[in-house]
Amino acid sequence: MAVYTHLGAEDLASLVSEYDVGTLVSAKGIAEGVSNSNWLIETRDDGKPDKAGRFILTMYERRIAAEDLPFFLGLLDHLSAKGCPVPRTIHDRGGAAWRMLRGKAVALIEFLPGVSVDRPTAAQARAVGEALAGVHLSSSDFDGSRENDLRPVDWQVLFDRCGESGLAAIDAELPALVAGNLPSVARDWPEHLPRSVIHADLFPDNVLLMGNSVSGLIDFYFACTDLTAYDLAVTHAAWCFADAGRTFRPEVSAALMAGYQSIRPLSAAERAALPLLAQGAALRFVATRSYDWLDTPPDAMVARKDPMDFARRLRFYAGAGDAAFAHALA
Amino acid sequence: MAVYTHLGAEDLASLVSEYDVGTLVSAKGIAEGVSNSNWLIETRDDGKPDKAGRFILTMYERRIAAEDLPFFLGLLDHLSAKGCPVPRTIHDRGGAAWRMLRGKAVALIEFLPGVSVDRPTAAQARAVGEALAGVHLSSSDFDGSRENDLRPVDWQVLFDRCGESGLAAIDAELPALVAGNLPSVARDWPEHLPRSVIHADLFPDNVLLMGNSVSGLIDFYFACTDLTAYDLAVTHAAWCFADAGRTFRPEVSAALMAGYQSIRPLSAAERAALPLLAQGAALRFVATRSYDWLDTPPDAMVARKDPMDFARRLRFYAGAGDAAFAHALA
Repeated sequence: MAVYTHLGAEDLASLVSEYDVGTLVSAKGIAEGVSNSNWLIETRDDGKPDKAGRFILTMYERRIAAEDLPFFLGLLDHLSAKGCPVPRTIHDRGGAAWRMLRGKAVALIEFLPGVSVDRPTAAQARAVGEALAGVHLSSSDFDGSRENDLRPVDWQVLFDRCGESGLAAIDAELPALVAGNLPSVARDWPEHLPRSVIHADLFPDNVLLMGNSVSGLIDFYFACTDLTAYDLAVTHAAWCFADAGRTFRPEVSAALMAGYQSIRPLSAAERAALPLLAQGAALRFVATRSYDWLDTPPDAMVARKDPMDFARRLRFYAGAGDAAFAHALA
Repeated sequence: MAVYTHLGAEDLASLVSEYDVGTLVSAKGIAEGVSNSNWLIETRDDGKPDKAGRFILTMYERRIAAEDLPFFLGLLDHLSAKGCPVPRTIHDRGGAAWRMLRGKAVALIEFLPGVSVDRPTAAQARAVGEALAGVHLSSSDFDGSRENDLRPVDWQVLFDRCGESGLAAIDAELPALVAGNLPSVARDWPEHLPRSVIHADLFPDNVLLMGNSVSGLIDFYFACTDLTAYDLAVTHAAWCFADAGRTFRPEVSAALMAGYQSIRPLSAAERAALPLLAQGAALRFVATRSYDWLDTPPDAMVARKDPMDFARRLRFYAGAGDAAFAHALA
């Protein structure tokens, strides 16, 4: 969202010199990342053209615990080596995947081209489905694991912190919508389904596209080990609606599911669980967005994400039931 | 400082297609610019390698009046054509220097490599002095002009709006420092000195360096027509101090002045006026920073710039008098 820490050319050049990537020639702070500072870095070769290039320098500011970095950065390396369109971590001359600078962890990450779309086409959704399935299959022999700290019980904690009056202040219908759906979703959560590493936040702005091809899956800082099909449900909720969650786009949904299943067919149990998982996915974003909405002053100059965008999706999934996915699983 | 407007890949690709610069392959919102949104744009060639490259897309959000764009963008083209290290404006297929997008003006600007230093060396200050003098000389046949809206009378207006109690809330010594210097500076302001286009805001973060060479002078959105030597005084105040204005760096000052005079020697009247112009330069930034400081909530998540950084410079210039420049004009 911002650049929280100022780094001058002297800091940046000194940091870059710890890596075998040439000499710093440009650095622009970029407005990306949930709670990191990021710079787009360009280097010039010193007689080794293959070493020069562009990189993303990430400084981990908050939320991201240092003990999770081996998981996040190791995952990028693992998936990249398997051919997934994921940026690899550049290791320093000593082989370390991250370094400390001014008391904060920093990592140098491969730059990937591509742009993020606002309104995906069916062809783009299909490509994203394929890429997501590729991540799920490729992570099967990754030996890191990380617990998901945003599971149904955690959504409940966030809603409790908001309080009924807080939720009602966001929208009069929100308390009843949450109370009418969260208990059954949490009770019936299909813990028995296959698990893997999941991205858990694969919104369009975390996917780089070149035309209809996925050139990059980025921002793995919610990645964790959880129900594989839940990741598909999150991606479905993030990609298959327009007009702030008011309009379901069945052709995008069908393409996403078809692309995914062309690489990793869902089991019968996963298919049966999708409607519930999608309600859970919507609840997860209603929970965090509601908490952040109430926690952020309206004049804070940080764009607050409207919880109602996902409350509408929740209403859709709850109302449609199996029909929400029937067209895509035919 | 931020990206105020969201533009998705569809908006950006459509906009880029209006220019003869190839196809959009990457766009990153960058954390630069005072009151604009900026994106670092990369394009791929479509069989015309000379057209592809990197560009800065600027959306003019506020403060900058549309009627000033011909001046700002024309100036970039004029200076660039004269060989100054200034980014040129990319004109669209119809020849326009800017277009409208969602009701706001946007311009595509050449990307220049280089990085901004926090603590300039004398060699870098010398190069900046040379580059600034080059701008002054090269602008002599530019036929645009723009009034400076931050002149002594405007500083007074800003201080009046802050009020004595406002200034005292920033620092107990600030009201007396302003009252003790602004009246005489305004009264003695050397209106008779040579005028030209001036940058008026040439801080280190508006200069891109490759080693000791200036690769780019950027952010001309305070540029105007005013006393040429005042621009040198602003640059002196911005470059020749360390420790938040507490420490004067005479070697940097001498190098800046020598570099400038190697290209454009100052007249005797300009040399004599420098101490007063430097007090004015310090007052100008105390004025705007004080106003912004009092106008910005402390929790606004926007970095407020401390007015006292320049109050200390004002105290230095006022105390040193002619001695502030004697070493550099010997």
